[in-house]
Amino acid sequence: MKRFTISKKEKQLFMWIVKEKGFDKDKITHHGNQFLIGHLKLGVRGTLDGYTKEEKVAIHLPMVYDQVDNLWREPINAFNPLYTEVMVNGVILSPLISQVIDHEISLDLRYGLLDIKTTYLLDEIKVILHAQRFVDYTKERAIVGLFRISCNQDAKIDIKTGIDYDVWDLNGPHLNHIERKRSPYLSVLGMTEEKKRRIVVKKDVTFFQDHLSKVIEENKKLLIHTSFHAKKDQTYGFEQFSVIGVDDDENELNHKLNIMKHEGYKKIFTKHQKIWDKMWQYANVEIKGDQSADLSLRYAIYHLLILSPNRFMGESIPARGISGQTYKGAIFWDTEIFMLPFYLNTDQKSAKSIILYRIKGLEGAKRKAQSYGFQGAFYAWESQEDGYDACTDYNVTDVITGRHVRTYFKDKQVHISGDVVYAIDAYIERIKDFDILKQGALEVILEVARFYLDYGVYVPLRDRFEVWDVLGPDEYHERVHNNAFTNQLFKFVFGIVLKYEAFFKEMDAQFFHQLIAKLAYDKPLKLIHLYHQKIYIKKENHAGIIEQFDNYFKLKDIKLNDLLNQRIHQNEYLGGHGLAGDTKIIKQADVITMLYLFKDLYHVETMEKNFLYYEPKTEHGSSLSASMYALIGCMIGQPDYAYPLFMKSATVDLTGNSKQYAGGIYIGGTHPAASGGAYMTAIYGFAGLHIGKELSVKPKLPKTIEQISFHINHLGKLFKVVVNKNDYSIKEVTHD
Amino acid sequence: MKRFTISKKEKQLFMWIVKEKGFDKDKITHHGNQFLIGHLKLGVRGTLDGYTKEEKVAIHLPMVYDQVDNLWREPINAFNPLYTEVMVNGVILSPLISQVIDHEISLDLRYGLLDIKTTYLLDEIKVILHAQRFVDYTKERAIVGLFRISCNQDAKIDIKTGIDYDVWDLNGPHLNHIERKRSPYLSVLGMTEEKKRRIVVKKDVTFFQDHLSKVIEENKKLLIHTSFHAKKDQTYGFEQFSVIGVDDDENELNHKLNIMKHEGYKKIFTKHQKIWDKMWQYANVEIKGDQSADLSLRYAIYHLLILSPNRFMGESIPARGISGQTYKGAIFWDTEIFMLPFYLNTDQKSAKSIILYRIKGLEGAKRKAQSYGFQGAFYAWESQEDGYDACTDYNVTDVITGRHVRTYFKDKQVHISGDVVYAIDAYIERIKDFDILKQGALEVILEVARFYLDYGVYVPLRDRFEVWDVLGPDEYHERVHNNAFTNQLFKFVFGIVLKYEAFFKEMDAQFFHQLIAKLAYDKPLKLIHLYHQKIYIKKENHAGIIEQFDNYFKLKDIKLNDLLNQRIHQNEYLGGHGLAGDTKIIKQADVITMLYLFKDLYHVETMEKNFLYYEPKTEHGSSLSASMYALIGCMIGQPDYAYPLFMKSATVDLTGNSKQYAGGIYIGGTHPAASGGAYMTAIYGFAGLHIGKELSVKPKLPKTIEQISFHINHLGKLFKVVVNKNDYSIKEVTHD
Repeated sequence: MKRFTISKKEKQLFMWIVKEKGFDKDKITHHGNQFLIGHLKLGVRGTLDGYTKEEKVAIHLPMVYDQVDNLWREPINAFNPLYTEVMVNGVILSPLISQVIDHEISLDLRYGLLDIKTTYLLDEIKVILHAQRFVDYTKERAIVGLFRISCNQDAKIDIKTGIDYDVWDLNGPHLNHIERKRSPYLSVLGMTEEKKRRIVVKKDVTFFQDHLSKVIEENKKLLIHTSFHAKKDQTYGFEQFSVIGVDDDENELNHKLNIMKHEGYKKIFTKHQKIWDKMWQYANVEIKGDQSADLSLRYAIYHLLILSPNRFMGESIPARGISGQTYKGAIFWDTEIFMLPFYLNTDQKSAKSIILYRIKGLEGAKRKAQSYGFQGAFYAWESQEDGYDACTDYNVTDVITGRHVRTYFKDKQVHISGDVVYAIDAYIERIKDFDILKQGALEVILEVARFYLDYGVYVPLRDRFEVWDVLGPDEYHERVHNNAFTNQLFKFVFGIVLKYEAFFKEMDAQFFHQLIAKLAYDKPLKLIHLYHQKIYIKKENHAGIIEQFDNYFKLKDIKLNDLLNQRIHQNEYLGGHGLAGDTKIIKQADVITMLYLFKDLYHVETMEKNFLYYEPKTEHGSSLSASMYALIGCMIGQPDYAYPLFMKSATVDLTGNSKQYAGGIYIGGTHPAASGGAYMTAIYGFAGLHIGKELSVKPKLPKTIEQISFHINHLGKLFKVVVNKNDYSIKEVTHD
Repeated sequence: MKRFTISKKEKQLFMWIVKEKGFDKDKITHHGNQFLIGHLKLGVRGTLDGYTKEEKVAIHLPMVYDQVDNLWREPINAFNPLYTEVMVNGVILSPLISQVIDHEISLDLRYGLLDIKTTYLLDEIKVILHAQRFVDYTKERAIVGLFRISCNQDAKIDIKTGIDYDVWDLNGPHLNHIERKRSPYLSVLGMTEEKKRRIVVKKDVTFFQDHLSKVIEENKKLLIHTSFHAKKDQTYGFEQFSVIGVDDDENELNHKLNIMKHEGYKKIFTKHQKIWDKMWQYANVEIKGDQSADLSLRYAIYHLLILSPNRFMGESIPARGISGQTYKGAIFWDTEIFMLPFYLNTDQKSAKSIILYRIKGLEGAKRKAQSYGFQGAFYAWESQEDGYDACTDYNVTDVITGRHVRTYFKDKQVHISGDVVYAIDAYIERIKDFDILKQGALEVILEVARFYLDYGVYVPLRDRFEVWDVLGPDEYHERVHNNAFTNQLFKFVFGIVLKYEAFFKEMDAQFFHQLIAKLAYDKPLKLIHLYHQKIYIKKENHAGIIEQFDNYFKLKDIKLNDLLNQRIHQNEYLGGHGLAGDTKIIKQADVITMLYLFKDLYHVETMEKNFLYYEPKTEHGSSLSASMYALIGCMIGQPDYAYPLFMKSATVDLTGNSKQYAGGIYIGGTHPAASGGAYMTAIYGFAGLHIGKELSVKPKLPKTIEQISFHINHLGKLFKVVVNKNDYSIKEVTHD
């Protein structure tokens, strides 16, 4: 059993503040993710004010998708209104070229407030630059900041602050027909290629002191330039306000900016804080005895909070959150399986939004099924707006030959449709929001079942309904037959049809019959009744192991490290025809994910045997992997096996220890599914929460953790759960 | 429409003699194949007497399989009893190092007689070496030869002739525990690794003149050394006789060799000629107006004759004939589909042997099916003795990475089982040998049908029986669904079950019922009745094209040459994840093969449209390809399209223009399936022979061909068919 260790660095983390000291050029990209702020419609990467596209600055607009030529379709980045450049005595200050004697970047998780303080030494003058920023939660897309400068000697200071319209893109440029305006505010306007959406970024500043300033333009930047003589040890600077519009009326944006300027930084921040305080009231989890676990989990929850769709009903959460264009800014099964549980406990409106997104996507899913010659709903592997699948047939590059690799995520990873149904059922069971069935969820269920009926095959001699030619969660083994996980989902989906058929026959038979008639669903319904019991479910073999798919047991046995040592290039993609394809090495939890999602169907002994069998064969090459092992680790009574896997999930965006490349493709960014998985491990694993009619717990705390406490929203009531080593309490508490 | 051109060299070929003049080191390997002699149990490559393993000398023992360690299992090569080394005035003569002023190697197709004449210039002395050899058709494994030497000046001559036991192997060494004996004859004995088979090679010579000689041993050669002073312009030399034993009694071999020596070269050759004369009586095809086509086709037929299994009932023909260890000396579908038609017309005993081989292989085929979890008979892709599948999961090497490539020939190319049934039915329909059904052929049919029933799947919503996850004949596209060819074979096999069920219900119901009971075949039979009409048969699309497999039409359009230009290494394997995998470029005839094999089911218009669609997309990277296009070319009334494809098939082993490497694997050798395909094109294409109750022809002669004439054995009668541009005749003739 391999163990993950926790670095000293992780142990030094404070309770609410994530902080990094010292300047390290190699961490610029990682810090962009680590110190991300924003919300589901606006991501601002944790880069310095003086950075440009080279340092992966991004004012990211999730869900505003655009495609240039035949490049990958992805969400766009807007022009950067945070750009500020400082010269002291005519010399530009930048940590990339200047002498830095102190540098600290910190994120206050409580309010999503980023704070960057850098001390430079310039010809014996100490200069301190201190910037703060937050994405204003009281508005749709607005950023508020504070920028301070002080020197320990008198000096001449030049500040240039404005909008950098040279945008970092993976597959751009997306914004063209650029217009600049200097009044009433600095404004840069551009238009997306595909849908001609109008993107506007506006900015203004309020200087602490009155300075003469002029608007200049240089290096694709529209800037306010001011120059003054600074006195020793006095603080200069400005408050800054920016708004970003997507197809918004320009006058309204000007008006909005005008109000912000009048309110000022402090007033806006106070309002902003109230929203955050309320979010944390439901979401916070406290861990005692293990500060590192406590802060790491809080950091994970911070990411889930900034991604809450509750203000944007019908939107869902991309796999890389709001951290950039990686993975085409698309929504994967990550959201339904790894994030939804958090929102079900803490923020049911966000949970509902995640479901509504898939209901909205039904037509897209039907179109996708049709494009492959299937009936029903085949949900997108990489889902953009309206369920459009942005996944391509060549999602990886062969680093050895430079050729595109044909991958099968899009066309064979059919479990995604079942994951959507799994989420719908979990949502309804939890929230008792049966109305959503009539609002489209039942149609989603029926169309997914129809797709599964059409995709699966009946094998007459075996009298079985089988599922051939799929990818399971473990993407290293393509086009396998009877993936245990996928087959279990097929049976589940058919079962859900029968369940809600029974439900509606009781509650509203007319609605059900009308829907069946409207969808021409008589025949599928009959066939679902016929095949539901015939779906091939893999049983444990003599050793208690469930074979991941047909003939998995016949694959080559090899140790993970031996496999990795065979690489010719360190970024070699291991799946498909790569090194792992014909071995037992798997990318991520597969059978183990099935055991967790269908935990009621399996004995603990089966979980234990499969955990011990599969874990050493698992690369954990996906951020979806560790948490599933951690959860099963707890269920088999081994929270200390689970603990390092929990920490791996919770800290992935803190440490930056994640894959940055798949083959030749950049895949960096944040990992909200790992964050969700860390939350699940804490609540369902360590605390052992079980949500039936009542709440109950079966605590399995790892050695270092003395207590876990958290709130759970359950059927309209709020409960506080406190779990200690030897006792626990579950108490109803009042809430707003 | 691309055209193959015929080289001047091809045009210069004589009628019965295939001849190459001049020495070219680069052609040594090719000549080894081109000038091959032997029969189905002994192949002797066309190499010079002084050559060794470096020049790929092989005394090949087809069907004597052996495996060393985990290397590929292959037939062995025996010790070489043809080795002869000549010194003149103390200098060794060899075309590799000496000055050659004339060199001619020729093969008399009429008798399988190889003749090699080399004139050397050595210090102003002209020395002529002249060797002849044939594999004695009156015995099981014996070689007879004549070796002559003359100089135009007096000289001292040394001859060393004997057995070279340093054997060329692809995956050897196979022969160990080597023993040498000097009397009564030179003998070398060895033992195979796996089955401990005893291989013995014995040789003796009769010198023209009496010389003193002694037996010596040097460089893994056991040699008779004689030395004498030769007079100017006088011929010296010897007759040589060799026998090769496989588990044979040594005394009997000695006795056999003794008799041969007594009979002498000429007497043996006379007996040998009689056998050949009779073979040609049935087999010869004469083409008038086009000498090149005439000789090329005769050369192709020569190869089919040396491969006739008629003396070795129950044996079948390897894909590379008797030319060496390539393709593991295994039998492929080549034999059933591309060679059997020749034997059905000319030598029905050989045809029967080919069928018996598969009946013998039934148990092996059942074992193979079982190993993959299927019922019934899954015939070997590369079939060795008892139906053992020698194909490995890694049949190709990636030339860029040096890694083994997972190929799917063995586990997914299920059409092989149907090809066997196709051959059985063709044999019975032609020969009316219904007894063979009771001798195991019916059981083969039933078990293949059972396998197909278990392999195929029923798709409920479409109410269709489909065939997923196969390789069709075009091996560049792996793991496809509903390959048109394969599906048609499934339907055919089910249909054959129904056909013989009806036959036996009429003729011998008791036998049939007993067999059904013995095989527990009630349920499969019911299901075959049920699904026979539901098998998904691909229809022509709006443009008349039949899609090779599901979604083939969605693959990338690219020109063959553009694809080839993308290669990084010229021997790159194009299939699987290689360059062709996601394009429409195919290795070989696939839909076109289906159209030919099931020609009664398709209109000529369909054939024409599909020919024009698929031909430009076909690499013809298999020797099975050109002839199918040639046959369909004739059927659509375009014999001039067909002609170059016919010539490509007929001349492949004459010109050596074939792939020598697949990925990193040597695949050289002869191409009897191309030979069979050339024969089929001449008879069924150009002459347009149709064999119903009566024979009939629909001639489609290409421009250059004025007349084709040949014999056909039909229901015990022999017919001579003569086809001219504007008329034809079919006449019964007497035969032995």
